[in-house]
Amino acid sequence: MNESLPTGDGSGGAQPRFDMPLEEAMTTQRAIRRLRTDPVDDALLLRLIELALKAPTGSNAQNWEFVVVRDRAIKEKFGRLNGGAWGIYGRIGRWLSRNDPAMQRVLAAVQWQADHFADIPVLIVPCLRGPRLPWPPLAATSYYGSIYPSVQNLLLAARAAGLGAALITLPLWSTVLARRALGLPWSVTPCAVIPLGWPRGRYGPTTRRPVAEVVHWDRFGNRRATA
Amino acid sequence: MNESLPTGDGSGGAQPRFDMPLEEAMTTQRAIRRLRTDPVDDALLLRLIELALKAPTGSNAQNWEFVVVRDRAIKEKFGRLNGGAWGIYGRIGRWLSRNDPAMQRVLAAVQWQADHFADIPVLIVPCLRGPRLPWPPLAATSYYGSIYPSVQNLLLAARAAGLGAALITLPLWSTVLARRALGLPWSVTPCAVIPLGWPRGRYGPTTRRPVAEVVHWDRFGNRRATA
Repeated sequence: MNESLPTGDGSGGAQPRFDMPLEEAMTTQRAIRRLRTDPVDDALLLRLIELALKAPTGSNAQNWEFVVVRDRAIKEKFGRLNGGAWGIYGRIGRWLSRNDPAMQRVLAAVQWQADHFADIPVLIVPCLRGPRLPWPPLAATSYYGSIYPSVQNLLLAARAAGLGAALITLPLWSTVLARRALGLPWSVTPCAVIPLGWPRGRYGPTTRRPVAEVVHWDRFGNRRATA
Repeated sequence: MNESLPTGDGSGGAQPRFDMPLEEAMTTQRAIRRLRTDPVDDALLLRLIELALKAPTGSNAQNWEFVVVRDRAIKEKFGRLNGGAWGIYGRIGRWLSRNDPAMQRVLAAVQWQADHFADIPVLIVPCLRGPRLPWPPLAATSYYGSIYPSVQNLLLAARAAGLGAALITLPLWSTVLARRALGLPWSVTPCAVIPLGWPRGRYGPTTRRPVAEVVHWDRFGNRRATA
Protein backbone atom coordinates (compact mmCIF):
# COMPACT_ATOMS: atom_id res chain seq x y z
CA MET A 1 0.00 0.00 0.00
CA ASN A 2 1.30 3.43 -0.89
CA GLU A 3 3.04 5.25 1.93
CA SER A 4 1.06 8.40 1.21
CA LEU A 5 -2.10 6.62 2.27
CA PRO A 6 -3.25 7.36 5.80
CA THR A 7 -4.10 4.20 7.74
CA GLY A 8 -5.55 4.78 11.16
CA ASP A 9 -4.15 1.69 12.83
CA GLY A 10 -0.60 1.92 11.50
CA SER A 11 -0.88 -1.58 10.10
CA GLY A 12 -0.59 -0.36 6.50
CA GLY A 13 -3.90 -2.15 6.42
CA ALA A 14 -7.27 -2.37 4.85
CA GLN A 15 -9.25 0.54 6.28
CA PRO A 16 -7.95 3.92 5.15
CA ARG A 17 -8.98 6.90 7.32
CA PHE A 18 -9.51 10.53 6.47
CA ASP A 19 -8.60 12.44 9.60
CA MET A 20 -7.34 15.61 7.91
CA PRO A 21 -9.08 18.68 9.37
CA LEU A 22 -11.87 19.82 7.05
CA GLU A 23 -10.41 23.30 6.60
CA GLU A 24 -6.99 21.90 5.66
CA ALA A 25 -8.52 19.54 3.08
CA MET A 26 -10.51 22.37 1.52
CA THR A 27 -7.72 24.95 1.51
CA THR A 28 -5.14 22.55 0.05
CA GLN A 29 -7.43 20.92 -2.55
CA ARG A 30 -6.35 21.55 -6.12
CA ALA A 31 -6.41 19.87 -9.51
CA ILE A 32 -3.42 17.50 -9.72
CA ARG A 33 -2.94 16.30 -13.28
CA ARG A 34 0.60 14.87 -13.37
CA LEU A 35 0.19 11.41 -11.89
CA ARG A 36 2.47 8.43 -11.29
CA THR A 37 1.55 5.08 -12.79
CA ASP A 38 1.61 3.22 -9.42
CA PRO A 39 -1.67 1.42 -8.79
CA VAL A 40 -4.34 2.68 -6.39
CA ASP A 41 -5.75 0.19 -3.92
CA ASP A 42 -9.35 -1.15 -4.28
CA ALA A 43 -10.15 -0.58 -0.60
CA LEU A 44 -9.10 3.05 -0.88
CA LEU A 45 -11.20 3.60 -4.02
CA LEU A 46 -14.24 2.05 -2.37
CA ARG A 47 -13.79 4.22 0.72
CA LEU A 48 -13.55 7.36 -1.44
CA ILE A 49 -16.82 6.43 -3.13
CA GLU A 50 -18.43 5.51 0.20
CA LEU A 51 -17.67 9.03 1.44
CA ALA A 52 -18.97 10.45 -1.85
CA LEU A 53 -22.29 8.69 -1.13
CA LYS A 54 -22.72 10.75 2.05
CA ALA A 55 -23.46 13.82 -0.05
CA PRO A 56 -27.06 14.92 -0.60
CA THR A 57 -29.19 14.09 -3.66
CA GLY A 58 -32.48 15.66 -4.79
CA SER A 59 -35.42 14.03 -2.94
CA ASN A 60 -32.75 11.70 -1.48
CA ALA A 61 -33.08 9.60 -4.65
CA GLN A 62 -29.44 8.41 -4.51
CA ASN A 63 -29.77 7.78 -8.25
CA TRP A 64 -26.02 7.67 -8.76
CA GLU A 65 -23.68 5.07 -10.25
CA PHE A 66 -19.86 5.19 -10.19
CA VAL A 67 -17.82 3.45 -12.87
CA VAL A 68 -14.21 2.76 -11.82
CA VAL A 69 -12.05 2.35 -14.94
CA ARG A 70 -8.65 0.66 -14.85
CA ASP A 71 -8.93 -1.30 -18.11
CA ARG A 72 -6.33 0.11 -20.50
CA ALA A 73 -8.48 -0.25 -23.62
CA ILE A 74 -11.25 1.84 -22.06
CA LYS A 75 -8.79 4.43 -20.77
CA GLU A 76 -7.42 4.69 -24.33
CA LYS A 77 -10.94 5.34 -25.65
CA PHE A 78 -11.42 8.10 -23.09
CA GLY A 79 -7.95 9.41 -23.95
CA ARG A 80 -9.00 9.72 -27.59
CA LEU A 81 -12.27 11.41 -26.65
CA ASN A 82 -10.40 13.80 -24.36
CA GLY A 83 -7.67 14.43 -26.95
CA GLY A 84 -10.15 15.27 -29.68
CA ALA A 85 -11.95 17.88 -27.61
CA TRP A 86 -8.69 19.19 -26.11
CA GLY A 87 -7.19 19.66 -29.59
CA ILE A 88 -9.78 22.39 -30.24
CA TYR A 89 -10.38 23.71 -26.76
CA GLY A 90 -6.67 23.79 -25.83
CA ARG A 91 -5.73 25.77 -28.92
CA ILE A 92 -8.35 28.38 -28.07
CA GLY A 93 -7.24 28.39 -24.42
CA ARG A 94 -3.57 28.89 -25.30
CA TRP A 95 -4.45 31.78 -27.57
CA LEU A 96 -6.75 33.44 -25.02
CA SER A 97 -4.16 33.09 -22.25
CA ARG A 98 -1.10 33.95 -24.35
CA ASN A 99 -0.25 36.80 -21.91
CA ASP A 100 -1.13 34.90 -18.71
CA PRO A 101 1.81 32.76 -17.50
CA ALA A 102 -0.20 31.20 -14.62
CA MET A 103 -2.89 29.96 -17.03
CA GLN A 104 -0.19 28.76 -19.45
CA ARG A 105 1.18 26.54 -16.66
CA VAL A 106 -2.31 25.11 -16.08
CA LEU A 107 -2.67 24.43 -19.80
CA ALA A 108 0.73 22.69 -19.85
CA ALA A 109 -0.52 20.37 -17.07
CA VAL A 110 -3.73 19.68 -19.00
CA GLN A 111 -1.58 18.90 -22.06
CA TRP A 112 0.52 16.48 -19.95
CA GLN A 113 -2.71 14.81 -18.79
CA ALA A 114 -3.93 14.51 -22.40
CA ASP A 115 -0.58 13.01 -23.51
CA HIS A 116 -0.59 10.42 -20.68
CA PHE A 117 -4.30 9.71 -20.44
CA ALA A 118 -4.11 5.91 -20.79
CA ASP A 119 -1.34 5.77 -18.14
CA ILE A 120 -3.54 7.33 -15.46
CA PRO A 121 -4.11 4.54 -12.92
CA VAL A 122 -7.86 5.09 -12.40
CA LEU A 123 -10.69 7.05 -13.95
CA ILE A 124 -13.85 7.41 -11.89
CA VAL A 125 -16.95 8.29 -13.89
CA PRO A 126 -19.86 9.49 -11.71
CA CYS A 127 -23.19 8.93 -13.48
CA LEU A 128 -26.86 9.67 -12.87
CA ARG A 129 -29.75 7.33 -13.55
CA GLY A 130 -32.99 8.73 -14.91
CA PRO A 131 -34.00 11.36 -17.46
CA ARG A 132 -31.78 14.42 -17.95
CA LEU A 133 -34.22 17.27 -18.61
CA PRO A 134 -32.34 20.28 -19.98
CA TRP A 135 -35.35 22.48 -19.20
CA PRO A 136 -36.72 24.07 -17.05
CA PRO A 137 -33.62 25.34 -15.18
CA LEU A 138 -35.09 23.87 -11.97
CA ALA A 139 -34.88 20.36 -13.46
CA ALA A 140 -31.32 20.86 -14.70
CA THR A 141 -29.98 22.31 -11.46
CA SER A 142 -31.72 19.63 -9.34
CA TYR A 143 -30.26 16.97 -11.63
CA TYR A 144 -26.62 18.06 -11.49
CA GLY A 145 -27.09 19.09 -7.86
CA SER A 146 -27.57 15.36 -7.22
CA ILE A 147 -24.10 14.38 -8.43
CA TYR A 148 -21.61 17.22 -7.95
CA PRO A 149 -21.83 17.34 -4.15
CA SER A 150 -20.72 13.68 -4.19
CA VAL A 151 -17.97 14.51 -6.70
CA GLN A 152 -16.66 17.19 -4.34
CA ASN A 153 -16.69 14.72 -1.41
CA LEU A 154 -14.67 12.36 -3.56
CA LEU A 155 -12.15 15.06 -4.49
CA LEU A 156 -11.75 16.19 -0.86
CA ALA A 157 -11.35 12.60 0.34
CA ALA A 158 -8.73 12.01 -2.38
CA ARG A 159 -6.89 15.10 -1.14
CA ALA A 160 -6.95 13.81 2.45
CA ALA A 161 -5.59 10.45 1.25
CA GLY A 162 -2.72 12.17 -0.57
CA LEU A 163 -4.08 11.16 -3.98
CA GLY A 164 -3.94 13.46 -6.98
CA ALA A 165 -7.28 14.11 -8.64
CA ALA A 166 -8.98 16.54 -10.97
CA LEU A 167 -12.52 17.20 -12.16
CA ILE A 168 -12.86 17.11 -15.94
CA THR A 169 -15.73 16.88 -18.41
CA LEU A 170 -14.05 17.16 -21.85
CA PRO A 171 -14.01 13.36 -22.53
CA LEU A 172 -17.81 13.48 -22.31
CA TRP A 173 -18.33 15.82 -25.29
CA SER A 174 -20.00 12.83 -26.97
CA THR A 175 -22.26 11.12 -24.45
CA VAL A 176 -22.99 8.51 -27.15
CA LEU A 177 -19.32 7.48 -27.39
CA ALA A 178 -18.73 7.77 -23.63
CA ARG A 179 -21.78 5.58 -22.94
CA ARG A 180 -20.57 3.03 -25.49
CA ALA A 181 -17.07 2.89 -23.94
CA LEU A 182 -18.54 2.07 -20.52
CA GLY A 183 -21.48 -0.06 -21.66
CA LEU A 184 -23.88 2.38 -20.02
CA PRO A 185 -27.59 1.98 -20.78
CA TRP A 186 -29.44 5.02 -22.18
CA SER A 187 -31.03 5.62 -18.82
CA VAL A 188 -27.62 6.33 -17.21
CA THR A 189 -25.76 9.57 -18.05
CA PRO A 190 -22.04 10.07 -17.41
CA CYS A 191 -21.61 13.48 -15.72
CA ALA A 192 -17.87 13.90 -15.11
CA VAL A 193 -14.51 12.12 -15.16
CA ILE A 194 -12.09 12.09 -12.24
CA PRO A 195 -8.55 10.90 -13.12
CA LEU A 196 -6.92 9.55 -9.95
CA GLY A 197 -3.41 8.54 -8.97
CA TRP A 198 -0.45 9.32 -6.74
CA PRO A 199 0.94 12.78 -7.58
CA ARG A 200 4.21 13.53 -9.33
CA GLY A 201 5.99 16.49 -7.73
CA ARG A 202 4.71 18.97 -5.18
CA TYR A 203 1.72 21.24 -5.41
CA GLY A 204 1.21 24.58 -3.68
CA PRO A 205 -2.02 26.33 -2.69
CA THR A 206 -4.51 27.87 -5.11
CA THR A 207 -5.48 31.51 -5.39
CA ARG A 208 -9.07 32.66 -5.50
CA ARG A 209 -11.04 35.86 -5.92
CA PRO A 210 -11.39 37.56 -2.51
CA VAL A 211 -14.63 36.65 -0.75
CA ALA A 212 -15.77 40.32 -0.60
CA GLU A 213 -15.89 40.33 -4.42
CA VAL A 214 -18.38 37.46 -4.70
CA VAL A 215 -20.68 38.18 -1.74
CA HIS A 216 -23.81 40.31 -2.08
CA TRP A 217 -25.94 41.21 0.94
CA ASP A 218 -29.70 40.75 0.36
CA ARG A 219 -29.60 42.17 -3.18
CA PHE A 220 -27.17 41.78 -6.05
CA GLY A 221 -24.55 44.52 -6.01
CA ASN A 222 -25.04 45.39 -2.31
CA ARG A 223 -21.53 44.98 -0.86
CA ARG A 224 -22.19 45.81 2.75
CA ALA A 225 -23.79 43.65 5.46
CA THR A 226 -27.09 45.10 6.58
CA ALA A 227 -27.89 43.05 9.69
CA MET B 1 -21.33 34.45 19.37
CA ASN B 2 -23.19 31.17 19.45
CA GLU B 3 -21.68 28.55 21.73
CA SER B 4 -21.93 25.91 18.99
CA LEU B 5 -19.42 27.86 16.92
CA PRO B 6 -15.88 26.50 17.05
CA THR B 7 -13.30 29.20 17.71
CA GLY B 8 -9.75 28.02 17.60
CA ASP B 9 -8.35 30.42 20.16
CA GLY B 10 -11.05 29.91 22.79
CA SER B 11 -11.70 33.66 22.85
CA GLY B 12 -15.21 33.26 21.42
CA GLY B 13 -13.63 35.53 18.87
CA ALA B 14 -13.72 36.64 15.31
CA GLN B 15 -12.03 33.88 13.35
CA PRO B 16 -14.06 30.67 13.28
CA ARG B 17 -12.11 27.48 12.55
CA PHE B 18 -13.18 24.22 10.99
CA ASP B 19 -11.00 21.57 12.58
CA MET B 20 -13.48 18.70 12.40
CA PRO B 21 -11.87 15.67 10.72
CA LEU B 22 -12.98 15.44 7.08
CA GLU B 23 -14.46 11.99 7.50
CA GLU B 24 -16.52 13.05 10.52
CA ALA B 25 -17.88 16.10 8.67
CA MET B 26 -18.88 13.96 5.69
CA THR B 27 -20.39 11.09 7.65
CA THR B 28 -22.44 13.37 9.94
CA GLN B 29 -23.61 15.80 7.25
CA ARG B 30 -27.33 15.82 6.72
CA ALA B 31 -30.14 18.16 5.74
CA ILE B 32 -31.24 20.09 8.86
CA ARG B 33 -34.48 21.95 8.20
CA ARG B 34 -35.83 22.84 11.65
CA LEU B 35 -33.83 25.93 12.60
CA ARG B 36 -33.81 28.38 15.50
CA THR B 37 -34.34 32.07 14.83
CA ASP B 38 -31.06 33.15 16.55
CA PRO B 39 -28.87 35.21 14.21
CA VAL B 40 -25.80 33.84 12.44
CA ASP B 41 -22.65 35.93 12.64
CA ASP B 42 -21.32 37.79 9.55
CA ALA B 43 -17.74 36.59 10.09
CA LEU B 44 -18.93 32.98 10.17
CA LEU B 45 -20.98 33.39 6.96
CA LEU B 46 -18.02 34.96 5.18
CA ARG B 47 -15.72 32.16 6.30
CA LEU B 48 -18.21 29.53 5.03
CA ILE B 49 -18.26 31.25 1.65
CA GLU B 50 -14.47 31.65 1.64
CA LEU B 51 -14.15 27.88 2.05
CA ALA B 52 -16.78 27.38 -0.68
CA LEU B 53 -14.52 29.40 -3.01
CA LYS B 54 -11.77 26.79 -2.62
CA ALA B 55 -13.78 24.36 -4.75
CA PRO B 56 -12.96 23.91 -8.44
CA THR B 57 -14.73 25.67 -11.35
CA GLY B 58 -14.64 24.86 -15.06
CA SER B 59 -11.51 26.43 -16.65
CA ASN B 60 -10.96 28.01 -13.21
CA ALA B 61 -13.38 30.75 -14.25
CA GLN B 62 -14.60 31.37 -10.67
CA ASN B 63 -17.74 32.82 -12.25
CA TRP B 64 -19.75 32.51 -9.03
CA GLU B 65 -21.67 35.02 -6.94
CA PHE B 66 -23.21 34.36 -3.51
CA VAL B 67 -26.22 36.33 -2.32
CA VAL B 68 -26.67 36.28 1.48
CA VAL B 69 -30.30 37.03 2.33
CA ARG B 70 -31.39 38.21 5.79
CA ASP B 71 -33.95 40.81 4.71
CA ARG B 72 -37.35 39.58 5.85
CA ALA B 73 -39.22 40.90 2.81
CA ILE B 74 -36.96 38.93 0.46
CA LYS B 75 -37.17 35.80 2.62
CA GLU B 76 -40.98 36.14 2.45
CA LYS B 77 -40.82 36.26 -1.36
CA PHE B 78 -38.69 33.12 -1.41
CA GLY B 79 -41.07 31.56 1.10
CA ARG B 80 -43.98 32.18 -1.28
CA LEU B 81 -42.00 30.79 -4.23
CA ASN B 82 -41.05 27.75 -2.17
CA GLY B 83 -44.57 27.30 -0.83
CA GLY B 84 -46.13 27.42 -4.29
CA ALA B 85 -43.90 24.68 -5.67
CA TRP B 86 -44.07 22.67 -2.46
CA GLY B 87 -47.88 22.74 -2.51
CA ILE B 88 -47.80 20.62 -5.68
CA TYR B 89 -44.58 18.67 -5.17
CA GLY B 90 -45.27 17.89 -1.51
CA ARG B 91 -48.72 16.51 -2.25
CA ILE B 92 -47.26 14.14 -4.85
CA GLY B 93 -44.42 13.20 -2.46
CA ARG B 94 -46.79 12.40 0.41
CA TRP B 95 -48.89 10.22 -1.84
CA LEU B 96 -45.87 8.38 -3.32
CA SER B 97 -44.38 7.76 0.13
CA ARG B 98 -47.65 6.97 1.92
CA ASN B 99 -46.21 3.57 2.99
CA ASP B 100 -42.70 4.83 3.81
CA PRO B 101 -42.53 6.24 7.38
CA ALA B 102 -38.90 7.42 6.97
CA MET B 103 -39.78 9.51 3.92
CA GLN B 104 -42.90 10.80 5.69
CA ARG B 105 -40.64 12.17 8.46
CA VAL B 106 -38.48 13.92 5.85
CA LEU B 107 -41.59 15.43 4.24
CA ALA B 108 -42.78 16.65 7.66
CA ALA B 109 -39.45 18.47 8.08
CA VAL B 110 -39.77 20.00 4.61
CA GLN B 111 -43.30 21.09 5.55
CA TRP B 112 -41.93 22.69 8.75
CA GLN B 113 -39.33 24.52 6.65
CA ALA B 114 -42.03 25.74 4.24
CA ASP B 115 -44.21 26.94 7.15
CA HIS B 116 -41.31 28.86 8.77
CA PHE B 117 -39.44 30.01 5.67
CA ALA B 118 -39.32 33.73 6.50
CA ASP B 119 -38.05 32.95 10.03
CA ILE B 120 -34.94 31.16 8.75
CA PRO B 121 -32.03 33.40 9.79
CA VAL B 122 -30.11 33.27 6.50
CA LEU B 123 -30.63 32.09 2.94
CA ILE B 124 -27.51 31.75 0.81
CA VAL B 125 -28.17 31.75 -2.94
CA PRO B 126 -25.17 30.53 -5.00
CA CYS B 127 -25.32 31.90 -8.55
CA LEU B 128 -23.36 31.58 -11.78
CA ARG B 129 -22.48 34.38 -14.15
CA GLY B 130 -22.54 33.77 -17.88
CA PRO B 131 -24.78 31.91 -20.31
CA ARG B 132 -26.58 28.77 -19.17
CA LEU B 133 -26.57 26.47 -22.20
CA PRO B 134 -29.00 23.57 -21.70
CA TRP B 135 -27.35 21.70 -24.56
CA PRO B 136 -25.07 19.89 -25.33
CA PRO B 137 -24.85 17.84 -22.09
CA LEU B 138 -21.13 18.79 -21.87
CA ALA B 139 -22.07 22.46 -21.50
CA ALA B 140 -24.73 21.75 -18.88
CA THR B 141 -22.57 19.47 -16.73
CA SER B 142 -19.58 21.85 -16.93
CA TYR B 143 -21.87 24.71 -15.92
CA TYR B 144 -23.39 23.12 -12.84
CA GLY B 145 -20.04 21.42 -12.10
CA SER B 146 -18.78 24.96 -11.48
CA ILE B 147 -21.16 25.70 -8.60
CA TYR B 148 -22.13 22.48 -6.79
CA PRO B 149 -18.62 21.60 -5.57
CA SER B 150 -18.61 25.00 -3.82
CA VAL B 151 -22.12 24.34 -2.47
CA GLN B 152 -20.91 21.06 -0.96
CA ASN B 153 -17.91 22.83 0.64
CA LEU B 154 -20.36 25.30 2.16
CA LEU B 155 -22.60 22.51 3.50
CA LEU B 156 -19.64 20.61 4.99
CA ALA B 157 -18.23 23.77 6.57
CA ALA B 158 -21.68 24.56 8.02
CA ARG B 159 -21.75 21.06 9.49
CA ALA B 160 -18.30 21.54 11.06
CA ALA B 161 -19.47 24.86 12.56
CA GLY B 162 -22.54 23.19 14.08
CA LEU B 163 -24.91 25.09 11.79
CA GLY B 164 -28.00 23.49 10.29
CA ALA B 165 -28.21 23.67 6.51
CA ALA B 166 -29.95 22.05 3.58
CA LEU B 167 -29.67 22.15 -0.18
CA ILE B 168 -32.91 23.09 -1.90
CA THR B 169 -33.93 24.24 -5.38
CA LEU B 170 -37.76 24.48 -5.23
CA PRO B 171 -37.86 28.28 -4.63
CA LEU B 172 -36.12 28.64 -8.01
CA TRP B 173 -38.93 27.09 -10.10
CA SER B 174 -39.32 30.56 -11.60
CA THR B 175 -35.89 32.00 -12.31
CA VAL B 176 -37.65 35.19 -13.44
CA LEU B 177 -39.25 35.74 -10.02
CA ALA B 178 -36.13 34.57 -8.12
CA ARG B 179 -33.95 36.97 -10.13
CA ARG B 180 -36.39 39.80 -9.47
CA ALA B 181 -36.43 39.12 -5.71
CA LEU B 182 -32.62 39.40 -5.55
CA GLY B 183 -32.15 42.12 -8.18
CA LEU B 184 -30.03 39.73 -10.25
CA PRO B 185 -29.12 40.78 -13.79
CA TRP B 186 -30.05 38.42 -16.63
CA SER B 187 -26.44 37.33 -16.92
CA VAL B 188 -26.49 35.82 -13.39
CA THR B 189 -28.46 32.62 -12.72
CA PRO B 190 -29.48 31.48 -9.23
CA CYS B 191 -28.62 27.76 -8.92
CA ALA B 192 -29.67 26.71 -5.42
CA VAL B 193 -30.85 27.97 -2.04
CA ILE B 194 -29.19 27.04 1.25
CA PRO B 195 -31.28 27.89 4.35
CA LEU B 196 -28.91 28.29 7.31
CA GLY B 197 -29.34 28.58 11.07
CA TRP B 198 -28.64 26.95 14.39
CA PRO B 199 -30.45 23.60 14.60
CA ARG B 200 -33.48 22.77 16.74
CA GLY B 201 -33.16 19.36 18.31
CA ARG B 202 -30.69 16.61 17.60
CA TYR B 203 -29.97 14.85 14.35
CA GLY B 204 -28.66 11.33 13.82
CA PRO B 205 -26.69 9.87 10.93
CA THR B 206 -28.07 9.24 7.44
CA THR B 207 -28.44 5.91 5.68
CA ARG B 208 -27.21 5.32 2.17
CA ARG B 209 -27.23 2.58 -0.45
CA PRO B 210 -24.25 0.25 0.13
CA VAL B 211 -21.21 1.21 -1.92
CA ALA B 212 -21.12 -2.20 -3.66
CA GLU B 213 -24.52 -1.39 -5.21
CA VAL B 214 -23.36 1.77 -6.96
CA VAL B 215 -19.83 0.77 -8.06
CA HIS B 216 -19.15 -0.77 -11.46
CA TRP B 217 -15.68 -1.98 -12.42
CA ASP B 218 -14.59 -0.92 -15.94
CA ARG B 219 -18.02 -1.54 -17.49
CA PHE B 220 -21.56 -0.91 -16.31
CA GLY B 221 -22.96 -3.93 -14.52
CA ASN B 222 -19.57 -5.47 -13.73
CA ARG B 223 -19.64 -5.86 -9.93
CA ARG B 224 -16.20 -7.36 -9.33
CA ALA B 225 -12.82 -5.60 -9.27
CA THR B 226 -10.66 -6.77 -12.15
CA ALA B 227 -7.25 -5.36 -11.24
